[in-house]
Amino acid sequence: MMVLMKNKQILLASRPVGEATEANFRIIDTEMPQPKDGEVLVRTLYLSVDPYMRGRMDDRKSYIAPFALNEVITGVGIGEVIESRSPAFQHGDIVTGMLAWQLYSVAPARGLMKIDPMLAPVTTALGLLGVPGLTAYFGLLEIGRPKEGETVVVSGAAGAVGMTVCQIAKIKGCRVVGIAGSDEKNQYLEHELWVDATINYKVGDLRQALKAACPEGVDVYFDNVGGEVSDAVMPLINKGARIPICGQISLYNLGKPDVGPRVQPYLVVKRALMQGFIITDYAPRFSEGITQLVRWKAEGKLKYAENIVDGFENAPRAFLGLFKGENLGKQLVKVDG
Amino acid sequence: MMVLMKNKQILLASRPVGEATEANFRIIDTEMPQPKDGEVLVRTLYLSVDPYMRGRMDDRKSYIAPFALNEVITGVGIGEVIESRSPAFQHGDIVTGMLAWQLYSVAPARGLMKIDPMLAPVTTALGLLGVPGLTAYFGLLEIGRPKEGETVVVSGAAGAVGMTVCQIAKIKGCRVVGIAGSDEKNQYLEHELWVDATINYKVGDLRQALKAACPEGVDVYFDNVGGEVSDAVMPLINKGARIPICGQISLYNLGKPDVGPRVQPYLVVKRALMQGFIITDYAPRFSEGITQLVRWKAEGKLKYAENIVDGFENAPRAFLGLFKGENLGKQLVKVDG
Repeated sequence: MMVLMKNKQILLASRPVGEATEANFRIIDTEMPQPKDGEVLVRTLYLSVDPYMRGRMDDRKSYIAPFALNEVITGVGIGEVIESRSPAFQHGDIVTGMLAWQLYSVAPARGLMKIDPMLAPVTTALGLLGVPGLTAYFGLLEIGRPKEGETVVVSGAAGAVGMTVCQIAKIKGCRVVGIAGSDEKNQYLEHELWVDATINYKVGDLRQALKAACPEGVDVYFDNVGGEVSDAVMPLINKGARIPICGQISLYNLGKPDVGPRVQPYLVVKRALMQGFIITDYAPRFSEGITQLVRWKAEGKLKYAENIVDGFENAPRAFLGLFKGENLGKQLVKVDG
Repeated sequence: MMVLMKNKQILLASRPVGEATEANFRIIDTEMPQPKDGEVLVRTLYLSVDPYMRGRMDDRKSYIAPFALNEVITGVGIGEVIESRSPAFQHGDIVTGMLAWQLYSVAPARGLMKIDPMLAPVTTALGLLGVPGLTAYFGLLEIGRPKEGETVVVSGAAGAVGMTVCQIAKIKGCRVVGIAGSDEKNQYLEHELWVDATINYKVGDLRQALKAACPEGVDVYFDNVGGEVSDAVMPLINKGARIPICGQISLYNLGKPDVGPRVQPYLVVKRALMQGFIITDYAPRFSEGITQLVRWKAEGKLKYAENIVDGFENAPRAFLGLFKGENLGKQLVKVDG
């Protein structure tokens, strides 16, 4: 029985000047894509919206190509296979991979991974057991290298990456201080995730609050946000501190490079390390990371939170909400097929 | 036969506000120090003046205690033992260690190291075969980790550390670009030390010059100076770049933390590493470093230059000259005993 299905896509309508807005996106009706040999047709169930995607809206050379103007936005998603022209997948399989902001995608079989819905809720493939979880795992353990008893400060602590970093640092026996943008988020961090102290960076004197929360200084600063929050952490770093630079969400919507106090003098005096990383650099070790995350989750040591916006057409709004700090945990869009 | 000897000392007379000047120092006549058991009396031959000493003039917590007001300035020097109350040293031995800005010092025997004047000119113990050489060796090889064919940019390239970094990078098969503050220095770097390209940061457009000198980007940036020179290098770093932060001489005379373009976005996009270091952290490996430096010197692969100011009373002027870029190579003061 044939059902007449129509596709919808969200395109990059224009490049933002400074802050991105909904006007930079456009939704259109379009034809159903047709899979060729080796490809599968996927109905989108969930879209992941992530801060790094802001960089792709600019026409600037970076570690990943910019989105093309008037082309569909691409990103990680979860979908259901509705037609397979590959022996690797069957109708009804739940998969994750690079999909696009559209109701139906055609993807090469080798670009998709099957998800077992019995193992964990499928959405965890975009959060705790996906890129954000792996980012927390490798960024903290490989660059941050936290040791028992050390103080770990996490900015963007209530985001998908940040809350996982907080919990892994607790597993490693550290004192964990989370910085987030609302009291509600901080209550979650303290009461649900056993974070030792939290700071609402929007209220009061951030430097004083940090000093009070880190009486023995800062050994690891896992930086998701950059900007003035990071400026306030630098004077507190200890000798031999490690600073994984995961993201700089506070800067992504600025039109031009931001200025701030130079970090080099702190790095010299404290013989400290600051290192950027991109999670795909750790791809050969993803299965090691996932295995450990699944184990910790099963042991009850790792929790996660999701913020799910309903409706395909709300993807741009959900994405833009990231920069206003609207999400507690992983921000997802549920696509009603 | 007793000779009536008098001592002279240079004291920290006042702490600088911003730029240090000769008025911050005072020279006095004082009594000869007397060695106790286990100590030796040393006549100072050479004093080393080093950029890091500027930090010790401020009353600020750092990796090394500040100089005390109205007390003698301390630093690394070379001297001759004129009285020994330790079996480890004899009258006439040439030694190096932490001496002070005075004609005669008493030092514990365990704080001094004998120099063999037959092996190399004694002054190399303060330069190529001393702290500057070791700083170049460990900073470049342990943090910079240059690989054959990579581009290594060195700021402060004509200083004692910088010129050694340039040469070790050449030994490792890299394209080396030196940044210094005069054409004379750059001619030395290119013609004597085989540096591939040089830039006079005081003339013309630094960013354009860097771009032209580094057509394949920058893999290692060995940073001795900080400030605007470093700002110009950051946009050129390659994926996986390593940035050892050795010093920030351009900032030492500023009264307060400087601001500049934030480096974190570059570090993320390029998964780059920036790390400060203090050479004493590598103390357990000093003999390995010296052995290798001596070998390269013997093979004719490592040259050095010295800038020697005559006269004890000129130590403050020689020290302040470092910040004006007056020295080609290691800046020393020859003390006429």
